[in-house]
Amino acid sequence: MSSVFPEDSVGLVEPRTAHFAEPLPLACGREIADYQLVYETYGELNTARSNAVLICHALSGHHHAAGYHSPNDRRPGWWDGCIGPGKAIDTRKFFVVSLNNLGGCNGSTGPASLNPATGKVYGADFPVVTVEDWVHSQARLADVLGIDQWAAVVGGSLGGMQALQWTISYPERVRHCLSIASAPRLSAENIAFNEVARQAILSDTDFHGGHFQELGVVPKRGLRLARMVGHITYLSDDAMGAKFGRELKSDQLNYDFHSVEFQVESYLRHQGDEFSTRFDANTYLLMTKALDYFDPAAAHDGDLAKALSPAQAKFCVMSFTTDWRFSPARSREIVDALMATGKNVSYLEIDAPQGHDSFLLPIPRYQHAFSTYMNRIAV
Amino acid sequence: MSSVFPEDSVGLVEPRTAHFAEPLPLACGREIADYQLVYETYGELNTARSNAVLICHALSGHHHAAGYHSPNDRRPGWWDGCIGPGKAIDTRKFFVVSLNNLGGCNGSTGPASLNPATGKVYGADFPVVTVEDWVHSQARLADVLGIDQWAAVVGGSLGGMQALQWTISYPERVRHCLSIASAPRLSAENIAFNEVARQAILSDTDFHGGHFQELGVVPKRGLRLARMVGHITYLSDDAMGAKFGRELKSDQLNYDFHSVEFQVESYLRHQGDEFSTRFDANTYLLMTKALDYFDPAAAHDGDLAKALSPAQAKFCVMSFTTDWRFSPARSREIVDALMATGKNVSYLEIDAPQGHDSFLLPIPRYQHAFSTYMNRIAV
Repeated sequence: MSSVFPEDSVGLVEPRTAHFAEPLPLACGREIADYQLVYETYGELNTARSNAVLICHALSGHHHAAGYHSPNDRRPGWWDGCIGPGKAIDTRKFFVVSLNNLGGCNGSTGPASLNPATGKVYGADFPVVTVEDWVHSQARLADVLGIDQWAAVVGGSLGGMQALQWTISYPERVRHCLSIASAPRLSAENIAFNEVARQAILSDTDFHGGHFQELGVVPKRGLRLARMVGHITYLSDDAMGAKFGRELKSDQLNYDFHSVEFQVESYLRHQGDEFSTRFDANTYLLMTKALDYFDPAAAHDGDLAKALSPAQAKFCVMSFTTDWRFSPARSREIVDALMATGKNVSYLEIDAPQGHDSFLLPIPRYQHAFSTYMNRIAV
Repeated sequence: MSSVFPEDSVGLVEPRTAHFAEPLPLACGREIADYQLVYETYGELNTARSNAVLICHALSGHHHAAGYHSPNDRRPGWWDGCIGPGKAIDTRKFFVVSLNNLGGCNGSTGPASLNPATGKVYGADFPVVTVEDWVHSQARLADVLGIDQWAAVVGGSLGGMQALQWTISYPERVRHCLSIASAPRLSAENIAFNEVARQAILSDTDFHGGHFQELGVVPKRGLRLARMVGHITYLSDDAMGAKFGRELKSDQLNYDFHSVEFQVESYLRHQGDEFSTRFDANTYLLMTKALDYFDPAAAHDGDLAKALSPAQAKFCVMSFTTDWRFSPARSREIVDALMATGKNVSYLEIDAPQGHDSFLLPIPRYQHAFSTYMNRIAV
């Protein structure tokens, strides 16, 4: 493989599937009777089974976090910059597990799967899943893999929320929690952006109340708009300015509505178009709801420290200066709550111009801090 | 009227219409052969004709800036807090002119008007108009009203851009320019938000390439989404937090996609629904394009000081700390350029939590500064 893939790549990887026959009760009061989770692993589980790291994905993520599915792949997994031999999550040391969450659209049971109760595609009948539900489903996957305790649970954005929830739901099963570019709950503005994305999908005439698949159509217009709005919040104003400025697509103005006038319009349309052909609209709705609902402090009169008090893990919290989706102030809320309840927490605010997307990028100070923390973990 | 309207109101006002038979050449290369502008006036023009103030409106604004159209009106004009006897723009001193811009949908010739060349509604055939075009059309209105020189041209947001453009296009016709919560050109992020709004309208199946009116339909879904996105950018994160927080609409979570879960969702849906029944989709597209295209420095290799050098006016620039649509930094670009070319400029950054919407609100320090500046103007 050395000739085909970069030396610091985990190389060729193959997704596996775990089936679960025992019904999973959900926060919404319903249950999933029968489901499967698709996942990948990188590195080797040691004999003490003490070196396992769980990767939790964000809104549009999936199980394919590192390596390649074929020698012809143009791009590796979505977090390949952080996972591999010699990288922040060093696969020579750790056994890494990355799954597609329940409700997803990349192989795990979700709205596009067959509902065994009806023999039809779930569509809008798929139950709303929460961050807590995901953590419970991930715990069952850990059971299947023989992992009693994670060396670390790691995630960025919505993934960071899952990492936090793990320390609350299964305190004894997490030694380290890395929550990156995340927040302890959404702000009203965060919810507002999610609501616009949802309304774009729900009001698409091809959505058909979520049962579009049976009709052989896809609410592409809505998905496209949802993704365009999302992308604005993933970049910083400065990053957009540096990347696109007011650069024109052609030499002169067109004075119409359809032409692409500025480069940033071209970027957004491309991102939206591409996403609308590969992502499931019902999954998108589910993911935004999971974000909206996440609020571990709610059950404790808004006291986040109380919510986090059962945690036994050590914490690493990282944020990025220009992230305005989940600003450093939101990470500091987590840090303050952890300190208030006497937890062991490291916090780093990284100066980076790329906004929320920073957590996915090879920013030297970020990679260095990430590596240093992971290298210190005893396995 | 004293018993019906507040004492500091201009009271009952009636829109008037000015017809223009001479074709207006536009920046896009086309022309409007025949058009009308609807406007209102408040106060009295003095005999020296030296006390006239022009109000330029923002994206969704119109001519009805102050007073009431009927004793039954629940609300006065959109800038009633700033225009009236004893208010910032004191109608005991000034003769105030407020118009609906060309391309608008509140009475002035626009996409919903009949195209004399075809006898049909313009729809998408209405030419794209720019801030410069508006200023030229406003100058013709000034001619009709016998106003050689404005004591002041005043506007917030897109209105502030028109005020700036007046000092460039007609230096000798403006004594004072007040540009509030504005910017010398849009950033890539600003354009991105406009592009999402446009794509929401353009991709609505009821848009029909802009010729929906002939078919008796309205692209309400697109307009609604465009307005929802807009409203997020009009408020600050803090203002949204203070106004809505994570307050639930009902006592418990619904775990579905259609219910209104959080108050902020209810607010956005209401704003979107209301707007979609009263605003013209083609006008919305035109307004966002006028914003995107505004860039007086572009003709001077990006040198804003050079662009503003012809100005003879004195300037008052105001911004609001939490405005992230047009942040204080954007106003300072204007101030810096004006200073670089030796202009007389006052600048005030007002501490206000309400975001971009601040320019419409009765914020004491803002109103005080606004009044003080206007009161000093010699007429």
